[in-house]
Amino acid sequence: MAKMNEQPQEDLLAQYGERMLHTLEWLAAFGADPKGGVTRLLYTEPWLQAQLALIDSMQSMGLKADFDEIGNVFGKLQGSDSTLKPVLTGSHIDTVKNGGKYDGAYGVIASMMALGYLKAMYGTPKRTLEMVSFCEEEGSRFPLAYWGSGHVSGVLSMVDGAHLADPEGVTLLEAMAQAGFETSLAVPHPAKRTDIGAYLEIHIEQGSVLEVKNKQIGVVTAIVGQIRMTVVVTGTPNHAGTTPMTMRRDALAAVAEMVALTEQMALAEGEPMVATVGRLEVKRGTSNVVPGEVEFTLDIRHTDERKIEAFRAELIGKFKKIAVRRDLHIATVERLNTLPVAMDGGISLEIETACDFYGYTHMRMPSGAGHDAQLFGPICPSAMIFVPSQAGISHSPEEFTKPEALIVGFQTLVHVLYQYGYGGKADENL
Amino acid sequence: MAKMNEQPQEDLLAQYGERMLHTLEWLAAFGADPKGGVTRLLYTEPWLQAQLALIDSMQSMGLKADFDEIGNVFGKLQGSDSTLKPVLTGSHIDTVKNGGKYDGAYGVIASMMALGYLKAMYGTPKRTLEMVSFCEEEGSRFPLAYWGSGHVSGVLSMVDGAHLADPEGVTLLEAMAQAGFETSLAVPHPAKRTDIGAYLEIHIEQGSVLEVKNKQIGVVTAIVGQIRMTVVVTGTPNHAGTTPMTMRRDALAAVAEMVALTEQMALAEGEPMVATVGRLEVKRGTSNVVPGEVEFTLDIRHTDERKIEAFRAELIGKFKKIAVRRDLHIATVERLNTLPVAMDGGISLEIETACDFYGYTHMRMPSGAGHDAQLFGPICPSAMIFVPSQAGISHSPEEFTKPEALIVGFQTLVHVLYQYGYGGKADENL
Repeated sequence: MAKMNEQPQEDLLAQYGERMLHTLEWLAAFGADPKGGVTRLLYTEPWLQAQLALIDSMQSMGLKADFDEIGNVFGKLQGSDSTLKPVLTGSHIDTVKNGGKYDGAYGVIASMMALGYLKAMYGTPKRTLEMVSFCEEEGSRFPLAYWGSGHVSGVLSMVDGAHLADPEGVTLLEAMAQAGFETSLAVPHPAKRTDIGAYLEIHIEQGSVLEVKNKQIGVVTAIVGQIRMTVVVTGTPNHAGTTPMTMRRDALAAVAEMVALTEQMALAEGEPMVATVGRLEVKRGTSNVVPGEVEFTLDIRHTDERKIEAFRAELIGKFKKIAVRRDLHIATVERLNTLPVAMDGGISLEIETACDFYGYTHMRMPSGAGHDAQLFGPICPSAMIFVPSQAGISHSPEEFTKPEALIVGFQTLVHVLYQYGYGGKADENL
Repeated sequence: MAKMNEQPQEDLLAQYGERMLHTLEWLAAFGADPKGGVTRLLYTEPWLQAQLALIDSMQSMGLKADFDEIGNVFGKLQGSDSTLKPVLTGSHIDTVKNGGKYDGAYGVIASMMALGYLKAMYGTPKRTLEMVSFCEEEGSRFPLAYWGSGHVSGVLSMVDGAHLADPEGVTLLEAMAQAGFETSLAVPHPAKRTDIGAYLEIHIEQGSVLEVKNKQIGVVTAIVGQIRMTVVVTGTPNHAGTTPMTMRRDALAAVAEMVALTEQMALAEGEPMVATVGRLEVKRGTSNVVPGEVEFTLDIRHTDERKIEAFRAELIGKFKKIAVRRDLHIATVERLNTLPVAMDGGISLEIETACDFYGYTHMRMPSGAGHDAQLFGPICPSAMIFVPSQAGISHSPEEFTKPEALIVGFQTLVHVLYQYGYGGKADENL
């Protein structure tokens, strides 16, 4: 068996890198939009064809591949020592509507080609290496994100989602049955995986930090926790001509103060704090009427749960003071509250070692977006590798990462998986 | 002939006041909404029936009444001295969609009852007194406000509006023909009135200044000029989680500064300056996306044209600095620019004298809303009398003025018309 630093592997690794690029384009044909994007929604025909084709590809590379009962596809490279817990690597197959070719798909294809290369180059590993193409992460068809990884990690079960409907009124259970998956609500699902030793996911950054900082690899320290709220401020709609400035109860003027304050406080707090007002609606807004009601969203993210709570408490407290000073009513509703998930320091160190081995530049960074890895973080050591996104664009047909950058990520992933399957970490139980 | 300060008139004046209140309710039945408001759009059936019924009422009170060629209704109380230019009093018959019972209607009915009372009480005046029920002021059916008074004053002609269409695609010309009015574009309209000596309009305030200041009558000093603009600020839409605060080009955060600045500068300028951001739209706004484009309206009003221009120049200059500092693009489009119109000092003094005669409290104030009087201001001495609007509410079924307050305005109007038709001002040419 050859070692990673010997010569012949370089050619084969380069070949698998090329195959990885081609396979990524091949996958993008499933659900390809004539206008350029990709739409592969959970349990639809393009989605099903893509998962079936992936099973074929995995099998042709010598992996033992099949669906689980909800439509996740696992591909296993069986190790020789069954006392070692397997390392799972992968991402998700579904896309947003009119999304890009890379979000999720890159992690699935890179994982498949990594296992294919390792088997071809080094044969049977000591530790089982396994890949997964999760059925769903985006929540684009049903209002339920992380269905695939949530099911595997045991965070979500059929009870959570069975009766949720898509925009056409089809329930998750009906959609599953139409795609050939049968799951009884009465039977606790059997396939919850409790045997996984570690989870590793490679993904495009979906932001522009790596590009701006000119780094090839991002090593994710934590996936941020997030609070989403809706805020409604109510004053009095008045005639814009006949109401003197001092007699107004202008909801928008108050909200302008709140939006400005949100930005100022997030800037003052410093990275990785981000706070965003993304949607703002002036109810019955007309150019000649003083706004009587404004609704807006607030999105607060940080890697430290306490920072999120402290920021929210201070901000909402200041919002209320603004409302009181202006004699307005304010109401807030929490829409989402997820905890930050720390990535594993040991695996992250292996990622940095791999980068240094190849001479790739790298940096530690939080993930501001959610990923399947956050479902595994609480149950096993988990880690993420980021590659740059051009101009930070994602969830768009314009989503793009340069082929060279995709190869850099692929080689880094291969090196880490080698360590856990065959190399210095292959004997270590997780 | 009795004099105003003799006894018997008081009873008759009170009777006409009561009739005025009943007639106002009677008029509200034309186009009454089952839910409580009134909808009387230009050239619709309820509008036509209301104007026809008004002609009947005017004639029954001894006025010479008829349509002009576009649907304004004039009612004339002929004076004995034809060398004196007539005083015209009135307002408009149309409403906004689901509007109130008072806006426009009060001025029409109060004028009719005032002339009816003066004829009954004092007979033929020396100066001709004339009333008008303008066909349209609101611009609610066609995108053309002041069609009635604009036609009479010569500011608007058929050429301006003939091909404008309502939301159903019916043009102004077609709607006129359907209502029985025929006007040829080829022939300059013959009825432009150049003989009017003065214009007087009584109207609800549509604001809450009189109520807050506890005054019965507002004597309008000027109708404000107005600039309406649309401002578009463009940045970059980015992921709210993956884009650090320092890497954002957030259009909404910039606009929040602009909205706050608009309010601050208008407050600092002091009355009668008002500046309003009434409509604000975050394009493709989503809770987890940093806003890339925001459009908002800006409405600036003042009685001094130079103040409006200076304010606009300073404000837009500061908007541009905000955009430059944040590396954003900003574009502004002017949608409307009307000049302030000063009301006549002499007639306003007569209004104050009338108030003092009856012991009514009064104050001078600008009109922040537009009125038919602003079309006459530039061509003849014009004045306006305001009565309080409950809570400042207008353009709504909840529009309300107390009957006592309507009577106060009516008596003030009667007194001023008496002076110009029979009293101290009846000999004075205008």
